[in-house]
Amino acid sequence: MNPRIVEVRKDILKKNDVAAAALRRRFDATGLIVTSLVSSPGAGKTAFLERTLSMARARHRVAALVGDLATECDAERLRRSGVPVRQITTGTVCHLDAEMIERALGELTLADLDWLFIENVGNLVCPASYDLGEHRRAVLLSVTEGEDKPLKYPTIFNTADVAIVTKIDLAAAVDFDRDAVLRNIDSVRPGLDVLEVSAKTGEGLDRWLALLEQPVSDRTVESTA
Amino acid sequence: MNPRIVEVRKDILKKNDVAAAALRRRFDATGLIVTSLVSSPGAGKTAFLERTLSMARARHRVAALVGDLATECDAERLRRSGVPVRQITTGTVCHLDAEMIERALGELTLADLDWLFIENVGNLVCPASYDLGEHRRAVLLSVTEGEDKPLKYPTIFNTADVAIVTKIDLAAAVDFDRDAVLRNIDSVRPGLDVLEVSAKTGEGLDRWLALLEQPVSDRTVESTA
Repeated sequence: MNPRIVEVRKDILKKNDVAAAALRRRFDATGLIVTSLVSSPGAGKTAFLERTLSMARARHRVAALVGDLATECDAERLRRSGVPVRQITTGTVCHLDAEMIERALGELTLADLDWLFIENVGNLVCPASYDLGEHRRAVLLSVTEGEDKPLKYPTIFNTADVAIVTKIDLAAAVDFDRDAVLRNIDSVRPGLDVLEVSAKTGEGLDRWLALLEQPVSDRTVESTA
Repeated sequence: MNPRIVEVRKDILKKNDVAAAALRRRFDATGLIVTSLVSSPGAGKTAFLERTLSMARARHRVAALVGDLATECDAERLRRSGVPVRQITTGTVCHLDAEMIERALGELTLADLDWLFIENVGNLVCPASYDLGEHRRAVLLSVTEGEDKPLKYPTIFNTADVAIVTKIDLAAAVDFDRDAVLRNIDSVRPGLDVLEVSAKTGEGLDRWLALLEQPVSDRTVESTA
């Protein structure tokens, strides 16, 4: 890659890390737990988040930010769950960054929230490099995408705290090879938690909610160390 | 976005355009027709290209370049079709650029080829900005990804010459709404050709091969004007 863009990229990433660390301190100050979702386009982030918000709001004060290049479609869908949702439209930018999150938080009173979810732009590459101040990053992979994706997009799996295999209801229709995908995830990121879910049937969502109830520690410790 | 990165980006894109124009002149000099494929990860580019190469080689001298962040998986799969295939591994770079294509061409004798295919990194965002010297760009969208994708990733549809709806064999299993996807493609890119295909059943591949046989003109005219 062009040496100048490498230099500017490093600079941008450093600035983003600073902004992300400031966000994380803000979240930690009120005990707000932030979870981000990343995946390729069409892996089912929005459907999964819609179910998550509907279930989570029974016991927690929840909100969501959702990123896309264009349209307000996802925010409109997610608002049906009855929680506050803000759309971030990035234009041609292929990922969310910490400053976009800060701006989108706007007048939300963080102290009134327990959980915040951030749905990134659909992209398995670029979002890997941008810390958003989140405590937990979930990478989603649908059964229709092919079992080789963890090997082909290792960075995103390396920056995630949990992998979520979506559309598990379609597993038989696409001859999904469960052992292969688990083996491939484990080879790029040994020991990573993997959940299998279907936003359509609800399968696996209880395990996901249970995981969300677990205390977060690693990222918080890192950022405040 | 940071003004410095905007500036460097413009510079990079201008350099890429120059390199791409040089490539296109090289291709045109020997009458080689170059087609690129872009899509999100898991839309089925490789399976589709595997079928395309197997069918095309009956009548044409064909080769392929295939981009991924990591692994040689795709090149290995595509070589089963019996044509020369080169893997380009980009590391953490989210798209192919014209210089990568130039390097990958290496010692291929272009005059010995009729058709060259380029499979980009799985990404519906960044590849839109990089001209690879191709004559025809196909954007692939699988029926499992959701009908809203053209609205959410308009740039890639705006730079494509044909849209290919893949995995059409799964349409019923995922309640695919054909009218919605056609309407959404037409709203971001009125008049764009749309093909529906299945690499599994072979449906629609004859129409695709027929399209490849048609003369290319617009991009060539643009670049040599």
